Amino acid sequence: MKKIHIVGLGLLGGSFALALKKAKPEIKLTGFDSNPKNLEDALTLGLVDEARNQADSDTDIIILATPANTLRALLQETLDRIGPETLVVDFGSAKELLCKSVEDHPKREQYLAGHPIAGTEYSGPKAAKVDLLDRKVFIICEMEKTNIHLKAKAYEVLEALNMKLRFMDPEEHDKHLAFVSHLSHITSFMLGKTVLDKMEDEKNIFDMAGSGFASTVRLAKSSPAMWAPIMQENKKNILEAMSLYIANLSKFRDKIIADDYEGIYHEMEKINKIREILDLGG
Amino acid sequence: MKKIHIVGLGLLGGSFALALKKAKPEIKLTGFDSNPKNLEDALTLGLVDEARNQADSDTDIIILATPANTLRALLQETLDRIGPETLVVDFGSAKELLCKSVEDHPKREQYLAGHPIAGTEYSGPKAAKVDLLDRKVFIICEMEKTNIHLKAKAYEVLEALNMKLRFMDPEEHDKHLAFVSHLSHITSFMLGKTVLDKMEDEKNIFDMAGSGFASTVRLAKSSPAMWAPIMQENKKNILEAMSLYIANLSKFRDKIIADDYEGIYHEMEKINKIREILDLGG
Repeated sequence: MKKIHIVGLGLLGGSFALALKKAKPEIKLTGFDSNPKNLEDALTLGLVDEARNQADSDTDIIILATPANTLRALLQETLDRIGPETLVVDFGSAKELLCKSVEDHPKREQYLAGHPIAGTEYSGPKAAKVDLLDRKVFIICEMEKTNIHLKAKAYEVLEALNMKLRFMDPEEHDKHLAFVSHLSHITSFMLGKTVLDKMEDEKNIFDMAGSGFASTVRLAKSSPAMWAPIMQENKKNILEAMSLYIANLSKFRDKIIADDYEGIYHEMEKINKIREILDLGG
Repeated sequence: MKKIHIVGLGLLGGSFALALKKAKPEIKLTGFDSNPKNLEDALTLGLVDEARNQADSDTDIIILATPANTLRALLQETLDRIGPETLVVDFGSAKELLCKSVEDHPKREQYLAGHPIAGTEYSGPKAAKVDLLDRKVFIICEMEKTNIHLKAKAYEVLEALNMKLRFMDPEEHDKHLAFVSHLSHITSFMLGKTVLDKMEDEKNIFDMAGSGFASTVRLAKSSPAMWAPIMQENKKNILEAMSLYIANLSKFRDKIIADDYEGIYHEMEKINKIREILDLGG
């Protein structure tokens, strides 16, 4: 393997580039970002060796790490253009619509649907970290649809980055992610909004906020350019998760209204089970 | 000052004890916990020098660090019993009902209503940490109602612990805390419940959870023995905060239903303002 091209040099694409440079310095890295400032920063930071509007024809892997709602068009036109030895891998947070959009593409077997489970609340090339992907889960969907020789190139890179591969259906992926990732971003944004709205009348309210608030609201710092599109691409599952969440909140509020503090105690105690599960995950 | 007695040797009471032992080793510490196992652990860990059912009559300060719904009765009976040189300070998370309950007590001026803004998701004497209170905010309510000489004793201790004093009305305190602390515990517990419920049918869902989920759900590990009583003691304000939060969530859901992703983008962008506010707070 000698050449990898990355489209989208933000947090994920940039972190992938940094990790790859460390693990496989012999590979030449090219890249592109539609935001000129991001592209400039990426070059200044040395995330990629050279900028290219299009990947060279001898590129082994093209990584698509742009916002979720841009991926369908980008994947389509990338597949249309590449030669037979190039694999395209995307890093998108929603997989069902994307996989469906290329199911009949003549070069479908040159595409691998991927999703690294990693991120921070920061974005852009400057937020990239060399260890962001280290020992994180990398989900692959419809692995059976990708050409076995091209797929081997991706596995070689992901292994070099210490990523843990998991395989699942796009539908399953999107359903799970709505609950364990997309929902927590929404709850965090809405917590931020509720407190900010309150703050308009009450000054210095944040003075009283402890580390618990900071942790729960952290994801409200996340990039709208990344997250608004995810709402669009995983609409169905996100709406289901939100409805269950709002129903749980309403039932909890009803318990407080009814002064059912014993019921609240027992409910909280059951939810504490999440301790063991989270601690297992490390 | 020579003697301080702590009722409730859990996370807060225990951390206060550890910090005090370090900052003012000359003060003798006695303590009590109604849970025999906690009391035994506290003695084994050396949080206090000796166990006492009641504070000695020459005790300078009695700290009440028990669950919020026990404080009214405990404060009443403690004030009833103490001599004129003793100050009682509570660490409760709700202040309005508590302050009201003693407003006509003949020894009202021997009470200081306090609230250290510090905690972790763990509880009990073993969770106590020597630096938990270091440089944290300590809110004092109705400071003008406390005897000036007795109050000076509390200030001496709180300063030795590097705590930052803030003064406000009990009503204001409870309203603010509902938003920046109590609400985030509830949103976190409900996020935990929504995902745990989902997990009953879908195995391994947590495999896909990243650090963002862990951060947002962290407070769902918190102690029900501490938190269910807070729902009771700050009911009015918590219900208000929950209603605003649920309304915000519903409006956000409506935007997704209406495919208003531009509206979602702009809303998220506005909420991002919380970055600066949180980063200021350090």
